[in-house]
Amino acid sequence: MKNNRFVVIGGDAAGMSAASLVKRRRPDLEIEAFEMGDYTSYGACGMPYYISGLVPELEDLVVVSPQEFREKRGITVHMRHRVEKIIPAEKKIEVLELDSGRRKEVLYDELLIATGAAPVVPPGIDVNLPGVFVLRGLPDAEVIKQEALKTSGQEAVVVGTGYIGMEMAEALAEAGLKVKVIGRRPQVMPAFEEEIAAKVQKELIGRDVEVYTGAEAQQVKRSDSGRLQVTLSGGRTLTADLIVIGTGVRPRSELAAEAGLELGVKKAIKVDHRQRTSVEHIWSAGDCAEAYHRLLGKNTYIPLALTANRQGRIVGDNIAGTPAEFPGILGTTICKVFDLTVARTGLGLKEAQSEGLDVTKVEVNARSRPHYYPGGSEIKTILMVERGNRKLWGAQMVGLDGVAHRINTWAAAIYAGLSLEDIHAMDLAYAPPYSPVWDPVLIAAEIALKQVK
Amino acid sequence: MKNNRFVVIGGDAAGMSAASLVKRRRPDLEIEAFEMGDYTSYGACGMPYYISGLVPELEDLVVVSPQEFREKRGITVHMRHRVEKIIPAEKKIEVLELDSGRRKEVLYDELLIATGAAPVVPPGIDVNLPGVFVLRGLPDAEVIKQEALKTSGQEAVVVGTGYIGMEMAEALAEAGLKVKVIGRRPQVMPAFEEEIAAKVQKELIGRDVEVYTGAEAQQVKRSDSGRLQVTLSGGRTLTADLIVIGTGVRPRSELAAEAGLELGVKKAIKVDHRQRTSVEHIWSAGDCAEAYHRLLGKNTYIPLALTANRQGRIVGDNIAGTPAEFPGILGTTICKVFDLTVARTGLGLKEAQSEGLDVTKVEVNARSRPHYYPGGSEIKTILMVERGNRKLWGAQMVGLDGVAHRINTWAAAIYAGLSLEDIHAMDLAYAPPYSPVWDPVLIAAEIALKQVK
Repeated sequence: MKNNRFVVIGGDAAGMSAASLVKRRRPDLEIEAFEMGDYTSYGACGMPYYISGLVPELEDLVVVSPQEFREKRGITVHMRHRVEKIIPAEKKIEVLELDSGRRKEVLYDELLIATGAAPVVPPGIDVNLPGVFVLRGLPDAEVIKQEALKTSGQEAVVVGTGYIGMEMAEALAEAGLKVKVIGRRPQVMPAFEEEIAAKVQKELIGRDVEVYTGAEAQQVKRSDSGRLQVTLSGGRTLTADLIVIGTGVRPRSELAAEAGLELGVKKAIKVDHRQRTSVEHIWSAGDCAEAYHRLLGKNTYIPLALTANRQGRIVGDNIAGTPAEFPGILGTTICKVFDLTVARTGLGLKEAQSEGLDVTKVEVNARSRPHYYPGGSEIKTILMVERGNRKLWGAQMVGLDGVAHRINTWAAAIYAGLSLEDIHAMDLAYAPPYSPVWDPVLIAAEIALKQVK
Repeated sequence: MKNNRFVVIGGDAAGMSAASLVKRRRPDLEIEAFEMGDYTSYGACGMPYYISGLVPELEDLVVVSPQEFREKRGITVHMRHRVEKIIPAEKKIEVLELDSGRRKEVLYDELLIATGAAPVVPPGIDVNLPGVFVLRGLPDAEVIKQEALKTSGQEAVVVGTGYIGMEMAEALAEAGLKVKVIGRRPQVMPAFEEEIAAKVQKELIGRDVEVYTGAEAQQVKRSDSGRLQVTLSGGRTLTADLIVIGTGVRPRSELAAEAGLELGVKKAIKVDHRQRTSVEHIWSAGDCAEAYHRLLGKNTYIPLALTANRQGRIVGDNIAGTPAEFPGILGTTICKVFDLTVARTGLGLKEAQSEGLDVTKVEVNARSRPHYYPGGSEIKTILMVERGNRKLWGAQMVGLDGVAHRINTWAAAIYAGLSLEDIHAMDLAYAPPYSPVWDPVLIAAEIALKQVK
């Protein structure tokens, strides 16, 4: 390969995974990374646990610091440098050094765009209003935590009932605030079937979190008393001392679009199996890019940490000279909501139906441990099963005990394309502290076999 | 099918699973079961947790009582009836009613032998000596518990370091006794690789359990002081107030052998894929029978609860008129030893090598959760990988956190015959409370891919 300068835009996991891998395998290459913020490669998913107080120091979330990248991995990371423009015809980028205001041009042989995602803010909310926060990165986590702990007895409104919304609701409640969550959809956690969502809503209410579904925040203003007021569609008004926006993210793909790169699903940067964009010598990985979905057989946009890491490595492999393809996702996710664990893999019912599949869902409740062993409780499993061939397209679980790694049994089974008969025939581990003789996975497969013809 | 009387020998899970399934599907058949003990269908694996005090009542372990079988499932279970003889030529059995001493003959059209397993007692130990106990069934659990709680500060010797030995060591220690375990092999838990066993031994010692490996109990006697004395090979003597034998089990196959049925591996009753024995109209299931091993491609003897239940159902299906085959086991087991979880699936190194496979083992240590999230700890994974084709034959794990259901991800992957590349490509669930971005399963697959060529 004749490339000798690999330039990475973005200092998060996707970009830095690629950079690290390339440096290890091709120490002869010059690698430069540009990050507009103050942090590289950190566990963004850990931020709620810093806010809740579970993780004591913000720095604990940093996986590899810019210094470590420089000193231990030999990768130059330019912090607080914003890439302003990509000029593919000249294989160069224009970079703004934020602190000095200086601009420079950097030539690349291969370029990785790993600009990540940006939070989506609902139209009615002014994020510049004091007390309104968006969780973009570590500095926001710090500010939110400071604000949350300012005085006791504060009230918080969390806008959004997806993963971030749920985790922030828990975090703020654990930090001692009275929490209200609002979501546009008729149910919380719209990525899950309604039976699962109902369990989550019950858990929230049981933890004294007020839940407003089917409601949009139409206006936020500061009242005469100095507190924030959120007006919901329908007219109801909620009072809050702070408001946290967690309504999801969109790909940061403007830079790529301006450079003429094709965008794909939800305006994510269009990529092929090797993470190549539509423009030669430009790659993309992570939350700004599409992700290939194994079950859909096409690209989708589900920004997740493992996907970002893996795509970064795929880019690294390709640039280091080993052709590699992203194996694709199954849409596996997991989320802790207070004591509940909520997890899914594969397609949801509507997702499957919108692909034209004749899929039905099977709901199965089974104990996580034998009836006599303490600590067990009910796991609700929902399986998405195609009529006729009884192919399994998705699995979702919710429960207080034993959900976390059981979802991966489903993920493995779906990855491998196992039939329900095969899943039911699997030799899973049994001992009373962990599982009943017939694991909830086996029971769910059995009931699905009986119910779906 | 013209059979009209289905007779079951044995009231445990294997026998009663078959009986229940047949009754549901063929209510026209007459079903009679004979159990020599006082209990049907109970969670034998739960007995240590009754002894430890975790499970308050012995009756809690009973899954379905004889009354329930009779009244709710319409199955006649004759308790305290011992089958003395099977006469296949006349399709009849001879039964001894233990309480009255009466004998009777019962005709069958189809017969299931589900006589289970019997504990193996090392030659040097007299089980009739007061204070020496064997854990055969619920009444033994009761007696051991009474004895353990008789006075405080008692010492116990547990003979055997397999699953039962480990669970009994924990149970007796939790019940407040000072525990010593002795085992013939150079390591505890011989079903596991030595690196895993070393972790278990460390846990035992950390819990103040004395461990004597490579030692046989050569003699047990009551000393002049009235306490028990166990003389080990090598001459050392251990003092104890009670001794519990947990050195494994053998199939209860004498009745079958006397009736002319072929025995197979370790004198277990030889069965085919449909659980038919070598004699027509006689079936076998559970701990007295062989079990087909998917990876070995032949029958083996690994008595486990899920296998017994599943084989019972296979017999039930076949008798009810739906031809069914036992799908086979992978040798998946799991065991709690104090705070440690130890689990395996597939073959161990020696097991694979003795099949002529060129297998090597890969040891991988990885955190169960992100470094910043509380409650995480190291999981040690050992993979058995064939050189050349890098086929995965087995996986073993040990750790304080997150082992339990992760082993099932390996079990599913091995069941499906996934390659290490595929396992590494799986989309597993990530959230900080449960897993690092790269799950220990993915990390183990990655390292195995690097190490094995």
